[in-house]
Amino acid sequence: MAKKIDLNCDLGESFGAYTIGADEQVIPHITSANIACGFHASDPLVMDKTVGLAQKAGIQIGAHPGYPDLMGFGRRNLNASPKEVRAYIQYQIGALAAFAKAHGMRLQHVKPHGAMYNMAGKDPLLAEAVCEGVASVDENLILLGLSGSQMELFAQKKGIRFAREVFADRAYEPDGSLVARSKPGAMITDEDEAIRRVLRMVTEGKVTAVTGEEIAIRADSVCVHGDGEKALAFTAKIHAALQAQGIALAPLSDIL
Amino acid sequence: MAKKIDLNCDLGESFGAYTIGADEQVIPHITSANIACGFHASDPLVMDKTVGLAQKAGIQIGAHPGYPDLMGFGRRNLNASPKEVRAYIQYQIGALAAFAKAHGMRLQHVKPHGAMYNMAGKDPLLAEAVCEGVASVDENLILLGLSGSQMELFAQKKGIRFAREVFADRAYEPDGSLVARSKPGAMITDEDEAIRRVLRMVTEGKVTAVTGEEIAIRADSVCVHGDGEKALAFTAKIHAALQAQGIALAPLSDIL
Amino acid sequence: MAKKIDLNCDLGESFGAYTIGADEQVIPHITSANIACGFHASDPLVMDKTVGLAQKAGIQIGAHPGYPDLMGFGRRNLNASPKEVRAYIQYQIGALAAFAKAHGMRLQHVKPHGAMYNMAGKDPLLAEAVCEGVASVDENLILLGLSGSQMELFAQKKGIRFAREVFADRAYEPDGSLVARSKPGAMITDEDEAIRRVLRMVTEGKVTAVTGEEIAIRADSVCVHGDGEKALAFTAKIHAALQAQGIALAPLSDIL
Amino acid sequence: MAKKIDLNCDLGESFGAYTIGADEQVIPHITSANIACGFHASDPLVMDKTVGLAQKAGIQIGAHPGYPDLMGFGRRNLNASPKEVRAYIQYQIGALAAFAKAHGMRLQHVKPHGAMYNMAGKDPLLAEAVCEGVASVDENLILLGLSGSQMELFAQKKGIRFAREVFADRAYEPDGSLVARSKPGAMITDEDEAIRRVLRMVTEGKVTAVTGEEIAIRADSVCVHGDGEKALAFTAKIHAALQAQGIALAPLSDIL
Repeated sequence: MAKKIDLNCDLGESFGAYTIGADEQVIPHITSANIACGFHASDPLVMDKTVGLAQKAGIQIGAHPGYPDLMGFGRRNLNASPKEVRAYIQYQIGALAAFAKAHGMRLQHVKPHGAMYNMAGKDPLLAEAVCEGVASVDENLILLGLSGSQMELFAQKKGIRFAREVFADRAYEPDGSLVARSKPGAMITDEDEAIRRVLRMVTEGKVTAVTGEEIAIRADSVCVHGDGEKALAFTAKIHAALQAQGIALAPLSDIL
Repeated sequence: MAKKIDLNCDLGESFGAYTIGADEQVIPHITSANIACGFHASDPLVMDKTVGLAQKAGIQIGAHPGYPDLMGFGRRNLNASPKEVRAYIQYQIGALAAFAKAHGMRLQHVKPHGAMYNMAGKDPLLAEAVCEGVASVDENLILLGLSGSQMELFAQKKGIRFAREVFADRAYEPDGSLVARSKPGAMITDEDEAIRRVLRMVTEGKVTAVTGEEIAIRADSVCVHGDGEKALAFTAKIHAALQAQGIALAPLSDIL
Repeated sequence: MAKKIDLNCDLGESFGAYTIGADEQVIPHITSANIACGFHASDPLVMDKTVGLAQKAGIQIGAHPGYPDLMGFGRRNLNASPKEVRAYIQYQIGALAAFAKAHGMRLQHVKPHGAMYNMAGKDPLLAEAVCEGVASVDENLILLGLSGSQMELFAQKKGIRFAREVFADRAYEPDGSLVARSKPGAMITDEDEAIRRVLRMVTEGKVTAVTGEEIAIRADSVCVHGDGEKALAFTAKIHAALQAQGIALAPLSDIL
Repeated sequence: MAKKIDLNCDLGESFGAYTIGADEQVIPHITSANIACGFHASDPLVMDKTVGLAQKAGIQIGAHPGYPDLMGFGRRNLNASPKEVRAYIQYQIGALAAFAKAHGMRLQHVKPHGAMYNMAGKDPLLAEAVCEGVASVDENLILLGLSGSQMELFAQKKGIRFAREVFADRAYEPDGSLVARSKPGAMITDEDEAIRRVLRMVTEGKVTAVTGEEIAIRADSVCVHGDGEKALAFTAKIHAALQAQGIALAPLSDIL
């Protein structure tokens, strides 16, 4: 039963004249930031600014690499080869690491974005490519991904520390995978229920699957959101609920 | 009078299905490779491959960052702010450093590309931005640029090692700057004369300016080219001529 | 003295997951929309949607081509050649014309964006390139630009209809050019004064220059903005003020 | 039995400083050019130049739209929605049409590129999107695609003229589809056999499937290649073989 939990959120997804997310407002509520690296979102100026905000707030940072698809925000499946995915991961980790160094920080973790996260979660060759990419650049990096995914499997094989993330607003299948968004009951829309589920995943290591079964789940981190007022309010609510239960909020590096 | 000289060449400027340059053929003739980083040219796969070739050949590598202008190959002046240029430099150094790490190498140097090289050579604010970008990511990096440029000035101010490069095929003004390409006599078209000039710059530290005056010039590196058969043959010729004079070819890190 | 005036506004500058501007709210206040074409902003889906909104609202549309610099929103000077600028203009007009056709519309005008607008306003070679680009694709297109600019000059030379736009929030030099933003007094910050100036430019063809002199100015269109609540409110205010004076709001095609 | 046949080839796939293909050399051998439109390859200058070459040579031109994936040359499947594909098609047709207009030409046809060609060949929703995109911009355009594909089906439904293309170097399944490249026997490597097959498809409307069966196939156009010396020589060879058989080479617009 964890007494500590990490809250992770995607940050730094603005681009040029375009703004997405309320980074400065969500930062006080989280412990680890997944920072976009210029492929699916962000640009060098935004990366510099975002790392600076994280440094000032004392939270940990990680690379949030995605497919080179700015027009689709990295959310569209792209049939890139494992070799390409490995190189995309390396490139983006390196780019963000430069800003970390400039701000006197080190990267704590890597969390693939969007379609890359989903595809590498299921495809062993892509999962292996992600793991190779991460380990080849910095063997101390933690890979953050879905509990039970192919990425977790390959991280174990390769001796990479893996942090399991859970979702407050998503239902789970009995095997611990997420219920596909297209299926009924995929989303947990009641905020109070969502928070009760998070607390139970964190303190008891259990969640009720969509079928009604109790299943075991290990939560190192809860994925939260900061885009939009509602998401921001919900993130603050989870943060407060965890603290009220005496659960310490701590970055991944303090948990694993 | 130098007894050692570096030969540097731009490598890894292919992109996706597009090929530029004969990297594998020019590598045996050079000691330092300036590797494109995905802004004006290259992509993650090309970067990985190019670093691998350099590692295998035992030559040193450096980042060759440019403006985000793939369509113009980074050759068009772009009115980016110093803050933007600094961030572009950081981003691209970091990205290439990841591939260096994956191949068990470290970056030796940074040489800005094309329009960025030219603009930062003349504009103090951009020169300072380049120097800040370089030093903030890795204080051991050598900055490679035009002898007497604003980049040299700011590198000295900030305590960054600076390597001066000379050009075999370009004429010099009495103040040591390059004769603008638009002026008559800007290019040294006779190959034998070009080689005689290089030898003299390297062994005597002197060159005859376009006006006929003898001027002092310091050469740490000679910039050569590998795109096209003629350029490749000329590069081999310079290499051979230097060796025939008993001048050792050595990477920048052995010279400074 | 004009009894009719056009109000033009940049629209369709969102991109992928990124939103800029309040297009649907500004449309009721304007008569001509300058629609971004995918180089400095926008993408095919956004263009389709924006043309659809304009068609539904019954306003006229024009292409708003810019430099291929999404990261800089087309606001940074880029040293593209006249031949390149001409081709960029042709490409972007064509792309937007396809969506116009699909919605049963025709393009009314072309207004270059940002740095391209400024550079082609002053550089005769670029102004000529813009005019050639416009005329080569559709000889019925109106070119919309700064009164007294090089674009106006070349439009006359080439027999292209030219619409002169004026700015409510900018001060003018005695020669009719805009006072550079870097100079004191460049911006008209008092809203009521700005509106009085617009009314006078439209009804009397006169404006008080920054030096205090009365100068003649011809206004076919007033450039307004829809990004941000303040801009939107001011646009509504100008619209109302013009109507209160009995000045008809009409698209460029009804004015020239 | 056709007495006329079109030869189509992808042209204008160079980009900025990068060159692909030997456009000027292949043009004399073909009757229809599929010109890249800036998404998977090409840029405005290249498009202008390529249309100019086609105009001078008197061949017909068509748009060759692809996915916005320059790094992958449009060859990687991308999970774009039908609405996105429709808009990508419209955008790219329009862009090329502008250059056609500037050179006094009209577009004859549209042939989707790479992954878009393959995906829309099999997926009814994408095939419909392609057809809608084509028809919405210009109802006179011919859609060029694989015989028997979903694109042919939807073209018929929507009353769009469809031209069937065949491949000299690919084996066919008994149902008329191409044998997947991953299967043995997918490629016809013997040049003479490839040419005999082409002649038979054109004159008899028959081809021997990979299983040995005779199947009916309708050929309006043969797809040829101009990248690389071998491809160029083979294209010349097919051209000569067709002429030797008294088969007229004619653009699609003369055949349908």
